[in-house]
Amino acid sequence: MNIHTTQGNSSQVTERTPASTQPEQQTGYMPRVVIIGAGFGGLQAAKSLAHLPVKVTIIDRNNHHLFQPMLYQVATSGLSPADIATPIRETLSRQENTEVLMATVQGVNMQEQRVLLEHEQWVPYDYLIVATGATSNYFGHDEWAKLAPGLKNLDEALMVRDRVLLAFEAAEREPDEEKRKALMTFVLVGGGPTGVELAGSIAEVAHKSFSHNFRHIHPSDARIILVEGKARMMPSFPTSLTNKAQKKLQQLGVELRNGVHVESIDQHGVMIGKDRVDAETVIWTAGVKASSAGQWLQAAVDHDGRVKVQRDMTIAGHSNIFVIGDTALAMQRGKPLPGLAPVALQEAKYVASLIEDWIQGKEHKRPFHYFNKGTMATIGRGFGVVDIGIIRFTGLMGWLVWLFVHILLLMGVQNRLVVFLRYTWSYITFQRAARIILPEHNTHPPI
Amino acid sequence: MNIHTTQGNSSQVTERTPASTQPEQQTGYMPRVVIIGAGFGGLQAAKSLAHLPVKVTIIDRNNHHLFQPMLYQVATSGLSPADIATPIRETLSRQENTEVLMATVQGVNMQEQRVLLEHEQWVPYDYLIVATGATSNYFGHDEWAKLAPGLKNLDEALMVRDRVLLAFEAAEREPDEEKRKALMTFVLVGGGPTGVELAGSIAEVAHKSFSHNFRHIHPSDARIILVEGKARMMPSFPTSLTNKAQKKLQQLGVELRNGVHVESIDQHGVMIGKDRVDAETVIWTAGVKASSAGQWLQAAVDHDGRVKVQRDMTIAGHSNIFVIGDTALAMQRGKPLPGLAPVALQEAKYVASLIEDWIQGKEHKRPFHYFNKGTMATIGRGFGVVDIGIIRFTGLMGWLVWLFVHILLLMGVQNRLVVFLRYTWSYITFQRAARIILPEHNTHPPI
Repeated sequence: MNIHTTQGNSSQVTERTPASTQPEQQTGYMPRVVIIGAGFGGLQAAKSLAHLPVKVTIIDRNNHHLFQPMLYQVATSGLSPADIATPIRETLSRQENTEVLMATVQGVNMQEQRVLLEHEQWVPYDYLIVATGATSNYFGHDEWAKLAPGLKNLDEALMVRDRVLLAFEAAEREPDEEKRKALMTFVLVGGGPTGVELAGSIAEVAHKSFSHNFRHIHPSDARIILVEGKARMMPSFPTSLTNKAQKKLQQLGVELRNGVHVESIDQHGVMIGKDRVDAETVIWTAGVKASSAGQWLQAAVDHDGRVKVQRDMTIAGHSNIFVIGDTALAMQRGKPLPGLAPVALQEAKYVASLIEDWIQGKEHKRPFHYFNKGTMATIGRGFGVVDIGIIRFTGLMGWLVWLFVHILLLMGVQNRLVVFLRYTWSYITFQRAARIILPEHNTHPPI
Repeated sequence: MNIHTTQGNSSQVTERTPASTQPEQQTGYMPRVVIIGAGFGGLQAAKSLAHLPVKVTIIDRNNHHLFQPMLYQVATSGLSPADIATPIRETLSRQENTEVLMATVQGVNMQEQRVLLEHEQWVPYDYLIVATGATSNYFGHDEWAKLAPGLKNLDEALMVRDRVLLAFEAAEREPDEEKRKALMTFVLVGGGPTGVELAGSIAEVAHKSFSHNFRHIHPSDARIILVEGKARMMPSFPTSLTNKAQKKLQQLGVELRNGVHVESIDQHGVMIGKDRVDAETVIWTAGVKASSAGQWLQAAVDHDGRVKVQRDMTIAGHSNIFVIGDTALAMQRGKPLPGLAPVALQEAKYVASLIEDWIQGKEHKRPFHYFNKGTMATIGRGFGVVDIGIIRFTGLMGWLVWLFVHILLLMGVQNRLVVFLRYTWSYITFQRAARIILPEHNTHPPI
């Protein structure tokens, strides 16, 4: 039984009556592993612990695991939220040593080995795995968060979807030409894979999906501007692939602004370097910072809030506390590992194997090593770039590989079928499957 | 060009420059038909006017047409909102005499033949078709609206989805047995087709889809109570079908309370007759009232706000103003026509034919006549009741007919494929495809 409530004073603990039979009643004490976060890292850790004699509790503030690589499709009306989100309970329903807790974590009491929740509840642990992910990093300009939403969770994706769809609706009603132009200008700050994928997708929506849909504007007049501080888009990719990606973006009608920074953002536009651009929609795709797990653990963090971990993913001084995924700063060959799903997945499996070894009394000295299977990105319909070490390719083949790999990574057979159907349909017809503005989000901006 | 803005005083009118060529420039004056509402009636009216020499403007506060008969599936995590909502612009994109306006109507100026919008905008009309639908009717207890959401639009469906999913999450964390029972009690007020379909679906989610998903509660202990003031559920259906439907509901574990009224609702329960039931989730499926169109038109309305129309669907004294669908009180053989999609569709086609005749200078004396093709409802997975006059059937065959007819009525080939896939998948596995609580809706009720 895992949840406890502190009532009145901290020595009084109410333990709930378990509704189901607990494993400990059959086998005596079993170590309690608590996982915070059900993203790629946390969920994989839970799965990898399925057959060990431990009691697993996975805590997430949401009831679902989110497949972030396809968030840009939710933001551009191609997929519904539930197409890329699966209930954590259902995924782990048959894993009998595991329970799922939908709750918000407030902190960690490392002395008493407890995870603190809301309403003075707490969960005890023997091993703790922290996999709480990352949020958008506004690099000291948090006041921009309201003006320029990021693309890290479903709320933000739906906010971007609303803003893009409502901008065209407002433009259709707008008599003033300057205002209409600003409504049809979209600035994306940050040219990493997320920015590139989102820019390509917005361009396609505006220039293709919306044709014949309006009577007073030409959606193909829409400007999509992608800003990247470094000299080229997708700086983490090889130059040859970046060049092809940039060419494809330009073909789709995306304006590229390389080597220049966004200096300010206000309600009606941005300063790109010294250049003022009127734009009613600005989207932040520039970077991420880790969750506040570093504070819970009083651990050393880097400038992006990532917790410095040792070579076995533990934090210094606590051999039973692991930090994995985007929350961790794990070094390999002198460089930090990137915030990618495969990194989190491999770290999760490694930590589970470490716990297994300890339980079985084995020595486990091998440090974590990330094996890079490659990186890829997709730019609009039918174009992808894939970098698998010596093999690199682009174009339709790259897109098919991207789609194949990502559909396999998606959880749930039904979601795979639906996402495959939607991508195929959209490839043929340019239609977007989820082009709706929910009633509560209707703002009807004045014209 | 259809939108006008009153700036300063009402005699000064700004007319926008059309971005596209307007038909009137080629053929001279064409009558302007304005349709308010893009539900079944409004959208069908627009389509039926496609090939006439008129300028059509269809106004809706949402950007999508909603397929209401499947709303209960959104409310019970079976379908995503976009699966049953299609963008109005896309549906009418190739219909060149028609423009779509996403806007909120404030009223109608019948003297000057204008529809009034927000921000002092207005749209002139020669013919006006009002098809603004209905909302939940709390029969004088509007304070219950917050306690017991209805099921008339996507927001309400998502609210019901959140409440049902969050109730089980809270029950899983709740140590107090009485509170846990109240969290797992669901009261549906109103046993018409909506209440019956929703009750069957919630019962199936609790008793089947959720099995193995929780560790501290048995979701099958959930109580689903369906209350109907009349002597039997679905009083508009023949007694033989109702009896079978009631038996099926009881098999699914739904408690039926016939011939008794809900006397009061508060935050933690309801009074059903003189019987207090503690329930954290109450859903209103009892009845509808028409939109406020009657006030706009200063027209005679019945006690449910429906506008009294003449036999040609016009209102008294205004031969160019039609009211159709759930907003209209149309009498046939001394009884009001029911608020069903087929009624709205047939009325829309009739009104379009009337406008066609007038434009062509023909007499058109035939009054509207509704042809009843039958009614049907579905109760859980694999069970439907169908009443086609002399032919009546129930069970799996009824369910298949229900599904076939409703998938055909859905708009968009992609949505048809996806909905068919989801129903089939759910039939086989009991899994629900959209079991997510959006982050902004996470309330984490205290335990």
